[in-house]
Amino acid sequence: MSQRRAAYKGDRALAELLARERVGSDVASLRALVAGVIAAPVAEDESAWLELVTAKPGSALKAQLLALAAEMRAESLAQAARAPSHAERLKHLRAALARRGLAGFIVPRGDEHQGEHVPPRAERLAWLTGFTGSAGAAVVLKEKAAMFVDGRYTLQARAQVSGELYEFHHLIEEPPADWIAQQLGKGQALGYDPWLHTAVDRERYTTAAAKAGGRLVACAENPIDAIWAGQPPAPIAPVVPHPLAYAGRESRDKRNVLAGELAKQAIDAAVLTAPDSIAWLLNIRGGDVPHTPLPLSFALLSADATVELFCDPRKLSPGLARHLGNGVSVRGREEFPAALDRLGQAKNRVAADAASAAAFIFDRLERAGAEIVKSADPCALPKACKNEVELAGMRAAHRRDGAALTRFLAWIKGRAAKGGISEVEAAERLHALRREGELFRDLSFSTIAGSGPNGAIVHYRATAESNRCLRSGELFLIDSGAQYLDGTTDVTRTLAIGTPSAEMRERFTRVLKGHIALATVHFPTGTTGSQLDVLARAALWQAGLDYDHGTGHGVGSYLGVHEGPQRISKIPNTVALKPGMIVSNEPGYYKAGAYGIRIENLVAVTLADGHAAAEREMLAFETLTLAPIDLDLVEPELLSAAETAWLDAYHARVRESLAPLLGRASVRWLEEATRTLGA
Amino acid sequence: MSQRRAAYKGDRALAELLARERVGSDVASLRALVAGVIAAPVAEDESAWLELVTAKPGSALKAQLLALAAEMRAESLAQAARAPSHAERLKHLRAALARRGLAGFIVPRGDEHQGEHVPPRAERLAWLTGFTGSAGAAVVLKEKAAMFVDGRYTLQARAQVSGELYEFHHLIEEPPADWIAQQLGKGQALGYDPWLHTAVDRERYTTAAAKAGGRLVACAENPIDAIWAGQPPAPIAPVVPHPLAYAGRESRDKRNVLAGELAKQAIDAAVLTAPDSIAWLLNIRGGDVPHTPLPLSFALLSADATVELFCDPRKLSPGLARHLGNGVSVRGREEFPAALDRLGQAKNRVAADAASAAAFIFDRLERAGAEIVKSADPCALPKACKNEVELAGMRAAHRRDGAALTRFLAWIKGRAAKGGISEVEAAERLHALRREGELFRDLSFSTIAGSGPNGAIVHYRATAESNRCLRSGELFLIDSGAQYLDGTTDVTRTLAIGTPSAEMRERFTRVLKGHIALATVHFPTGTTGSQLDVLARAALWQAGLDYDHGTGHGVGSYLGVHEGPQRISKIPNTVALKPGMIVSNEPGYYKAGAYGIRIENLVAVTLADGHAAAEREMLAFETLTLAPIDLDLVEPELLSAAETAWLDAYHARVRESLAPLLGRASVRWLEEATRTLGA
Repeated sequence: MSQRRAAYKGDRALAELLARERVGSDVASLRALVAGVIAAPVAEDESAWLELVTAKPGSALKAQLLALAAEMRAESLAQAARAPSHAERLKHLRAALARRGLAGFIVPRGDEHQGEHVPPRAERLAWLTGFTGSAGAAVVLKEKAAMFVDGRYTLQARAQVSGELYEFHHLIEEPPADWIAQQLGKGQALGYDPWLHTAVDRERYTTAAAKAGGRLVACAENPIDAIWAGQPPAPIAPVVPHPLAYAGRESRDKRNVLAGELAKQAIDAAVLTAPDSIAWLLNIRGGDVPHTPLPLSFALLSADATVELFCDPRKLSPGLARHLGNGVSVRGREEFPAALDRLGQAKNRVAADAASAAAFIFDRLERAGAEIVKSADPCALPKACKNEVELAGMRAAHRRDGAALTRFLAWIKGRAAKGGISEVEAAERLHALRREGELFRDLSFSTIAGSGPNGAIVHYRATAESNRCLRSGELFLIDSGAQYLDGTTDVTRTLAIGTPSAEMRERFTRVLKGHIALATVHFPTGTTGSQLDVLARAALWQAGLDYDHGTGHGVGSYLGVHEGPQRISKIPNTVALKPGMIVSNEPGYYKAGAYGIRIENLVAVTLADGHAAAEREMLAFETLTLAPIDLDLVEPELLSAAETAWLDAYHARVRESLAPLLGRASVRWLEEATRTLGA
Repeated sequence: MSQRRAAYKGDRALAELLARERVGSDVASLRALVAGVIAAPVAEDESAWLELVTAKPGSALKAQLLALAAEMRAESLAQAARAPSHAERLKHLRAALARRGLAGFIVPRGDEHQGEHVPPRAERLAWLTGFTGSAGAAVVLKEKAAMFVDGRYTLQARAQVSGELYEFHHLIEEPPADWIAQQLGKGQALGYDPWLHTAVDRERYTTAAAKAGGRLVACAENPIDAIWAGQPPAPIAPVVPHPLAYAGRESRDKRNVLAGELAKQAIDAAVLTAPDSIAWLLNIRGGDVPHTPLPLSFALLSADATVELFCDPRKLSPGLARHLGNGVSVRGREEFPAALDRLGQAKNRVAADAASAAAFIFDRLERAGAEIVKSADPCALPKACKNEVELAGMRAAHRRDGAALTRFLAWIKGRAAKGGISEVEAAERLHALRREGELFRDLSFSTIAGSGPNGAIVHYRATAESNRCLRSGELFLIDSGAQYLDGTTDVTRTLAIGTPSAEMRERFTRVLKGHIALATVHFPTGTTGSQLDVLARAALWQAGLDYDHGTGHGVGSYLGVHEGPQRISKIPNTVALKPGMIVSNEPGYYKAGAYGIRIENLVAVTLADGHAAAEREMLAFETLTLAPIDLDLVEPELLSAAETAWLDAYHARVRESLAPLLGRASVRWLEEATRTLGA
């Protein structure tokens, strides 16, 4: 990832370089900037952040800046290694709580945006307890503390977190609120950080504390931040324009339409707390969290179509202000609370999303006198419905992604049965092939590459300990995706390494039948993903089998690989599927200790055609993902004629779309891999 | 229905008869009783209520009591005919509101039990406005009034209700709360009857009134009751034991189990407001509303397994107290509020169902100091899961019902194409055939018998104006059911009269494919009806067609033909299907102005068998309904081999089960009607 790097020559040498290139910042503020840069993920282009220092740094300055970042990164790791034990951290937290008159504190895994990805600064749960999973919470009381994780993380939590310091409970079945209701003492005050909980969460904790005869108390400052020596600052990654050629719609136009909606409801302003909503609305992208080009920030959209963007101004790439235009004013992140106060003082009607906005925001608005209208993030639905340019971008990105994946599949199907290819190596190979594609920016998530029994672990990520080589007679499941400027991909293929068993073929074919049932369904306008979910499962159910995850999630356009509000799953969801929405189609089957199967394509919702006699407006799915489905795993006898016809037509499309992007050997392999099954 | 009746000879003659037979009631209280009797539906056995006067009345007394009832019924109809116009009723209501200092009043269609069936006394919306549909509401303000109905009733409401007195709005899309928020004046008080709204409803109205700057005010007495001269009293129909031979489980056993659950949750008592829950819990049945053997009443179930039943004691049939036993005490309906007060004064934790219990109950409990636990009616789920005896009863009832229906189908398929059979005549013929069956007690709802275009009206009920004769080349849809002591039935068949068109056959076959998909699905424990709904629709969807009603509703055991909590529909529902639950399987297709198609069987949820390799506990449906599906409407080319096999196997079962109950001619017809399609 990195070439040989120059050594850092010291602050004085850097100051000289800065002066020579007439860069208007001193070393101290530069060090503060770099502290933020290293608190953001490393971008594919490691030097991208340099533009935040000066538009065109000379090569000497460039080298020294990169060297400084490397040195500070090393220091930061060294400091983390010297940090106190988890027992001491817990002791320090209890002391900090005692100083504040608190009997306890709730530590969620989350940040001020309640998103899936969290910057290092907000990894308070991991710092306090050692638990690094993506969902969980801890509650610390005077004498006791408890850790709450869901089924995915039961084993991991017990391995990472001390059972002497924390009790373990199930996040869903024995939630923190129940434990608080039982364990908090009468008259005791339980602290929480109102930035880290939604109003809905907070309601639950308030009730729980009241049940125990205690009370819930908001902390103005998070007590963990007070004791965490070396806590990273907020991440700093360049916020850049997302060009119209990819966004397809001017930000001004989006703002005007949404503002019109607000005006219709007599709403003066809407609070935006979801960074992907802000990115979509303003046609900007960032790099503050891994694999998703999010600019962590807040925004206020007014009914007059202007926007205040609350965001560290150091993150703005040169020229961004021009891109944002007159209608958008940038303010520091720290000015956000005062802006909420102003809305309240003006007695404004303000919309905020109770399911995702922090309790802090509601409190602040309410206290200042605003009339709050609880309503869904106004960007969520229009963002989900991709425009024609975004859809064209998605199709183009999927062609390039499919070509990279096909080259990978040809390589691995030809070699893996001989042994010696590990999961990690396979994932890295695929990454390298994708990186060669145009407009590639990042993976869209950490690749899941599970061979044999590892394939049965739904959220598997290969580690040094778990990594194993692909073996003949086993299955290999690879779930991966990329961020391209013109679109986001997410695809899973399951491969037979050598000759699969009859059971593997039978089960793969049932998963495929479910995949096809969803890919081919027509459904009336108004239908939700929850209604369609069963189509992907019925063929497994008839054999007494099922899978324990959703069937489809929304996907952004060079944004989150998981986005709402639509979803295909067993869990009731009232958001109807609309033309332009993108969802994954990913049924699976997992045999613990043996193998995992998943077939995932992305699909776009479109108007269904070919309905001469249709009495309703009907929708259908257009499959976007282009990559062969392993025919070695298909049992043709189990497919109906219509299913076989779908598979053949899909493979013909894959072949025709990808062949022009592939070399001769890959094309030969692809032709065989997409051979016709039907008569 | 009635034979030639003796004339009523006057109160003095009746008093003499009463004295002669040593009946301990005077004529005045007898007249009050009869006023209640005629406010209940007429039972199949018109003299059943006489046991409420005395166990064995002599024939002279019997004749005079029936004559008195007939006379009072005639008087009541005459009084209704003399009632003021709807304009005057509205004026009287406004005057009554003004006397109370109210600017308006909400008039829902419903009673104190929030059930589907409402006794005449509670038909306040119909009395005030003229609208007789089964769902709707009116809001009356000083200058304006509005009527709210759903799509089913748009036309009917405009025909029945004066557009000069009321604006019309859509109940769901422009709900009363929105209108209130716009139309109520600042500072105005809007009245409502807290017995007629759930706490959830009330919440909505409170918010709406507040938005308008007004307030919602509970009325201690319903102002309509004060101005409705001749308002019927509460209905009086005998409450009788439901024998163990049909109920399958002792009431004491049910009470003990539920009480144990309450105790586990530290709940002292549960309020029961659903009459079918009370009927199930106490193994009793009544006759207060049409077609459903409900005893309108309230009950309190204590954690010590005792029950207080709040019910007019005049309704109890002789011997009912013995049947109820020691653990159940009967109190007058008027004692119910004081009993709620007692729970509050004892600081009890009391469970009540926020979705169905009246706001009055919550208010009263809260004011008296009870701790309220909002939780679903504890009877709903165990009532829905039928025990083995109930299931055996359902199977037996469906055999008898299927035999009656088959005799009907043989008759109508043989005769209708020649013309001259009307919808009403057909429905009456089927009723008469059912009445010949053992244990028959009532129809389970008003038969829907729609020929040609009338079949396309989902909730059609033939009237003198709409009634038409079945004609060759048309379809005839008949949806009907019966109440037997051992079970409740509900079945729809669609028949070709003469030769159907290719389009009719194609669409019928798509409906059938949906029916079969649901009949044959296996699904894991935990699956809800909402998840399965799409299976019944997908074959229609693929042709751009759909139907605008649910796919399946729960059915009681000699109780409501519609019962919860499970449901198969597009609307999200979180109740998992459990073994013993009964649901209908009734996809349809409706071509407005042309024809309607529906194929409805009842099915019971069972454990799926035949899963050697099953990894999950799987459930399936056992089809209960036994009646041929019209093969004249099946297009065999459109069925898969598996679908044809299902239809043939179903028909073989129908033939084998019903033939022993049928005469030779019907058997001959049935053999042809259930002929094998497959090879």
